[in-house]
Amino acid sequence: MTVSTPVVPSRGRLRPLGLSEVSLRAPGFWAHRQQVNGSATLDHIERWLERAGWLGNFDGGPRQGREFSDTEVYKFLEALAWEYGRTRDPAIDARFRAVAARVAAAQEPDGYLNTNFGRPGQQPRYSDLEWGHELYSYGHLIQAAVARARTYGHDEFVAVAVRAADHLCDVFGPGGIESVCGHAEVEPALVELYRVTGNPRYLEQARLFVERRGHHVLSDIEFGRAYFQDDMPVREATVLRGHAVRAMYLAAGTVDVAIETDDDELLAAVARQWRATMARRVYLTGGVGARHQDEAFGDDFVLPPDRAYSETCASVGSVMLAWRLLLAYGDARYADLIERTLFNVIATSPSDDGTRFFYTNTLHQRTLGTVPPPDEIVPRASSNLRAPWFTVSCCPTNISRTFAGLAAYLATADDDGIQLHQYAAASLQVGDVALDIDTDYPVSGRIAVHVRRSPGRPWTLTLRVPAWATGATLDGEPVEPGWARLRRRFAEGETIVLSLPVQPRLTYPDPRVDAIRGCAAVERGPVVYCAESSGPSVDTFRLDAGQPLTDDGAGGITAQCHIVDPPDDDWPYLADRPDPPFEKAPVTLRPYHDWASRGPSTMRVWLPLA
Amino acid sequence: MTVSTPVVPSRGRLRPLGLSEVSLRAPGFWAHRQQVNGSATLDHIERWLERAGWLGNFDGGPRQGREFSDTEVYKFLEALAWEYGRTRDPAIDARFRAVAARVAAAQEPDGYLNTNFGRPGQQPRYSDLEWGHELYSYGHLIQAAVARARTYGHDEFVAVAVRAADHLCDVFGPGGIESVCGHAEVEPALVELYRVTGNPRYLEQARLFVERRGHHVLSDIEFGRAYFQDDMPVREATVLRGHAVRAMYLAAGTVDVAIETDDDELLAAVARQWRATMARRVYLTGGVGARHQDEAFGDDFVLPPDRAYSETCASVGSVMLAWRLLLAYGDARYADLIERTLFNVIATSPSDDGTRFFYTNTLHQRTLGTVPPPDEIVPRASSNLRAPWFTVSCCPTNISRTFAGLAAYLATADDDGIQLHQYAAASLQVGDVALDIDTDYPVSGRIAVHVRRSPGRPWTLTLRVPAWATGATLDGEPVEPGWARLRRRFAEGETIVLSLPVQPRLTYPDPRVDAIRGCAAVERGPVVYCAESSGPSVDTFRLDAGQPLTDDGAGGITAQCHIVDPPDDDWPYLADRPDPPFEKAPVTLRPYHDWASRGPSTMRVWLPLA
Repeated sequence: MTVSTPVVPSRGRLRPLGLSEVSLRAPGFWAHRQQVNGSATLDHIERWLERAGWLGNFDGGPRQGREFSDTEVYKFLEALAWEYGRTRDPAIDARFRAVAARVAAAQEPDGYLNTNFGRPGQQPRYSDLEWGHELYSYGHLIQAAVARARTYGHDEFVAVAVRAADHLCDVFGPGGIESVCGHAEVEPALVELYRVTGNPRYLEQARLFVERRGHHVLSDIEFGRAYFQDDMPVREATVLRGHAVRAMYLAAGTVDVAIETDDDELLAAVARQWRATMARRVYLTGGVGARHQDEAFGDDFVLPPDRAYSETCASVGSVMLAWRLLLAYGDARYADLIERTLFNVIATSPSDDGTRFFYTNTLHQRTLGTVPPPDEIVPRASSNLRAPWFTVSCCPTNISRTFAGLAAYLATADDDGIQLHQYAAASLQVGDVALDIDTDYPVSGRIAVHVRRSPGRPWTLTLRVPAWATGATLDGEPVEPGWARLRRRFAEGETIVLSLPVQPRLTYPDPRVDAIRGCAAVERGPVVYCAESSGPSVDTFRLDAGQPLTDDGAGGITAQCHIVDPPDDDWPYLADRPDPPFEKAPVTLRPYHDWASRGPSTMRVWLPLA
Repeated sequence: MTVSTPVVPSRGRLRPLGLSEVSLRAPGFWAHRQQVNGSATLDHIERWLERAGWLGNFDGGPRQGREFSDTEVYKFLEALAWEYGRTRDPAIDARFRAVAARVAAAQEPDGYLNTNFGRPGQQPRYSDLEWGHELYSYGHLIQAAVARARTYGHDEFVAVAVRAADHLCDVFGPGGIESVCGHAEVEPALVELYRVTGNPRYLEQARLFVERRGHHVLSDIEFGRAYFQDDMPVREATVLRGHAVRAMYLAAGTVDVAIETDDDELLAAVARQWRATMARRVYLTGGVGARHQDEAFGDDFVLPPDRAYSETCASVGSVMLAWRLLLAYGDARYADLIERTLFNVIATSPSDDGTRFFYTNTLHQRTLGTVPPPDEIVPRASSNLRAPWFTVSCCPTNISRTFAGLAAYLATADDDGIQLHQYAAASLQVGDVALDIDTDYPVSGRIAVHVRRSPGRPWTLTLRVPAWATGATLDGEPVEPGWARLRRRFAEGETIVLSLPVQPRLTYPDPRVDAIRGCAAVERGPVVYCAESSGPSVDTFRLDAGQPLTDDGAGGITAQCHIVDPPDDDWPYLADRPDPPFEKAPVTLRPYHDWASRGPSTMRVWLPLA
C-alpha cells in the first residue's frame, strides 16, 4: 500500500502515517502556518521562480541563477505534491502538471537532466563534481517524484525521475565514475525511489555513494574535505561535521541505506554521530551549523549566538534525520529534537504572511538591520530581517515542502498502537482507531486526546513527554519524560489528558560553550524566548535570575533585569573586573520564532546574568 | 633629502627616521627576527614564488596563482629594498635587480602591468574592478618602487612604477573610469610616489580614489559593499568596517592624502574611526578582523577568541595606519597599539626559523591540529599550525617587508628632540645626537639610553610609557603612562634609565565582549600570554584570580587553576547552573607569540575564572 508520507522504511520500530491518516486542524500553531504556506508561500515561490528565470531555464532560455537553481523548482514540485496529498485540490494538481511538463521537456534522450551543464557553451556534464551539484539536483528531482508517486501515483513526472535515476546509475554505477557529488542529497532520494519502485538498482547506487564518500574521492578545497564529508568514511565518523546541510542529508541517506540493507552497524554509526552532535554542536533552538564561512558545524561547543549561522535548510535536514532515527529506534529524544527544531528554527524562518524568510537564524542581533527591498533578490544568505528571495534561495522551498507534509511528523503506529510525538490540534484515523487531539499547545500544555473510534481489543496509546516536561501528568498521574504509555481497551468518547508544565523556566549552558558563559536563556514549553528591542540595545540587559519569570498574559514573559550603563572606554580590556552601574527594570521576553516581525530590532536569546 | 623609511609625510607632529639613522642591535627580540628574515625568510619566499610560478608569470609562462599573485613578487621586492637599505649588502641589491628585470619585461608599452588580465585568453583589463585587484597590484608595485627609490635611488624599476602610475592616472583620472579598486592599496602608494617624485598628479589621483569610494561605485556583492568600504564615504564613516586589510590600507592612504592636501577634516575622520575601532573592534593582541567568511571586522564587541580571524596582513595594515597617525598627531596611544600588535600578531605569525606562517591568528585553539606538509601550498587561510605557503600567500611577504624596515618604527624626531616609541636594543644617530639603547625588553622592563653624542644645547628626550605601565619610573622618578619627557643639556656618556613594570598582570574584558564574559587574560609588559597544552585540553582550565601569578624563571608565568571535569551530558543546556568538580593545579602560561611552536596543541588566551 502506498503511504503518502515523506519516508517509508521497510523496517523499524515505528511505522509512519500518511497524510490521509493524520491531519492538522485549525486553529493551531502549525495549521496556521500550513494554511499560509498553501495560500501564500506556494504562489510567492512560483512567482519568484518565473521572475528569476529559474523555471525558464527548463524552457531553454539563457541560463539564469546559480548552478543548483533547478532544485528550487524540484522542491517547489515536492511542496505541491504534499499539498495535493493533503488537500486533494485539483488546482494544486494542475499547477504541479504545468511545472512538471516544463521540467520533462528539458530532459535529454539519455535521461540526463540539468539546465546548467552539457549544452553548447556550458561546462561538460560531470566535469565539476565538487561544486556542480548535478547529483544533488537529481536528488531533489527524485524526491519530488517520490512525493508525486505517493500522493498521486506513477505519472510522466515520476517516469522522468526514473529515467534520470537510470542514467545516473549507468554513469556512476560499478565500472562508471567512482565518485560522489559534492553535496549529498541523491542518497536518500535514491533509497526512496527504490521504496517507491522496488528497483534494487537505486538502493545499490545509494549504498555505493554512501560507502565511497570519505575516501578523498573529491578534491581538497579551501574549506577542507570535511566540508562535503569526504574527510572520513561515514562508518568511522564520530560526529557530524562540515557543511551542515550536506551533513544532514548524507546522514539521512545513510540511515535509509542502513535500514534497507539491514546494516545495523551503519545505522548505529549515524545514531552515534547524532548523539555526539546533539551533545556538543547544536544551538538551544535546535539549529545547527555555527559558521558563516562554510555554512558548517564548528568544533565541539563552538556555538556563538551572534552570527549563529543555523541555516534554515540545515534544520530541515535535521528534522529529516531525526525522523528517520525515530522511526528506526523509537527513542523519544529524536522527537524532542524535532519539536525543538520545528518551534524554534522552522517556525522562525518564514514571516507570518509566508513571503519572507530567514536563511540564517542568529541567536543574537546586535544592530538594527535594514528591511530588504521587497522586489530584489538578496545576494547574501545572512540578513537581519527576513527577505523575499535569495541568490541562493534554498530555504523558502525547503520550508514550503516541510509545511505541506508536516502532519506526517505528528504520530506513528506500531503493531501495538499509536504514538503521538508532536502536539497540535489534529485528527488521526489509523485502521480502526480514530482520535481527535485538541490543544492550543504551545500556549498551554494541556493536550486532550478524544477517542472517536476504538476497536474492542486493548491497544497502547503512547504519548511523548518532552525532556523539559518535569512534572507532567497523564490523566492526573505523574509521568516522566520519555514515553508515557496507556494500554487498555479504550472507550469511544473517552478523553485522555496529558498536561505538560509550560511555566517559564531558566536554562543554563554547559560550561564548555564559551560564547555564552555567564548567561541564561528562558524557555517555555518547547519555545525558546528572546529579548527584543527596537529602542535601547538588548545588550544592556542583565537577567536577575533570583527574580521570578511571569507570563504577561499576552504571549510574553516578564523577566526582572538590570539595565546596565557600560563605560565608554578607549580600550575594551581592563585592569579591574568591570562593574557598570545599572537600573532595575522588567523586560518582556517574546517567542524567538516571532522576532524581527515588527521592523528592525536588536535581539538576544542568551541574557547575561546580573 | 631622501629618508630611507616607509612613510615620509611633508607635515605632522613627528618626523620619521631613516634606516641610516636608527638600527636594531643583536641580541634582541626584534633583531633576532630581522636577522632570520634576512637569512631565511627572503630565500623561502623567493623559492616559493618560483615554484608556484608566480614569478614565472612575468616571463609569460602559463598564468599561475590567484588574480593578485603579482603582488607577492612586489612585496618581496619591497622587502629586498628595505633589507638593502638596512644592510647595504650588494648581494641583496643583485637579487632585487634580477627580479625587477623580470617584472619590467612584462610591462606593456602603455604602462599597463598585470600578468592576469588583457593578454590573449585572459579577461580584458579593468573588466572586474570588484575582484580583479589590478589597482591593488599597482599599489604594491609602487610601494616596492618607493622603497627602492628611498634606499637606492631612481632606477629602471622606479621608472616601471612611474610608467604604471602614469597609465593608471590616464585611465582612472578625470574623464576616465570613475571608479575604484575593490581592494584599497594604491591610495597610500600613489601618495608615497608623489612624495618620492614630486609629481602632484599621483596625489590628485589618490585623492580621487579616496573621495570616490563609498558612493556605491562598485557592485553589491555577497558580503555587502562595506566589504570594500564602498558603503559610505570615508569622511562620513565612524568606525573601520568590512574586510580588515582593505579597511586598514584605505585608512592609511586616506591619512596620506589628508596630510598632503592639508585636509584636517579628513585626517580627523580617520582618527575618529581608529579610536572607535580600538574601543570596540580589536582583540587583546591588537589583531583585527573577527570574521572568517569575509576576513572582516565584526560588529562592535563581536570578538570571539575561537576562530578569531585576526589576519596577519590586517595587523601589518594596522601598524601602517597607526604609524601614520602617530606621525600626524604625536599621540602615544598610536605607538601603544603598534607595540601590542608587533609583539602579539606580527611576532606570532612566523615560525622561529622564518619559513612557516600563520595567516590567521586565533586566540583559542580547541583541537590538536595537524602539521601542514612542508612542500605543499595550503589551500586555506586558516590553519592551526604555521604553514610554508598559501594559495593566497599575502602574509609571508607582508611580514618580510615589515621586518626588513622595522627599525624605522622605533623612534622619531621633531624640532625639539627625539622620541622613543618602541623599546629594543638599538642605535640612533640623528643629526648631532647619538644614542645607544640597551635592553632585553620585553624580558625585563629596564631600558637604558646611553648618550654617546649630544650637542651642547638643551634638547628633549621623550620616552613612551605604555598605557599598561602603571608604576613606571624614569631615572627613579615616577612617570605616568603617555610621554615621559626629559629636557636638558645631555652629557655625553650619561645613561637614562626607564623602568617599566613587567610583572604579570590580569586583564578583564569589557562586559560587552560577550564571547569572553567571565574570563581573564594574563599579560606581562607588552606580551599577551596563553595557556597551551599538547595533552589535556586547555578548555578544562579555570583561572583562580585570587592566587598570585609568578614568573617561573623560564619565560613562563605560573598561574593557579582549577582543572574541571565537565559532565558528559546528552544535551548542553541545563536546568541548573553547572558546577563541575575540579582539582587545583598550577598551570604554566607562555607568550602567545610563541604558541604552536612545539607541535599540535590546544591553546587559549582568555581563561574562564574559577
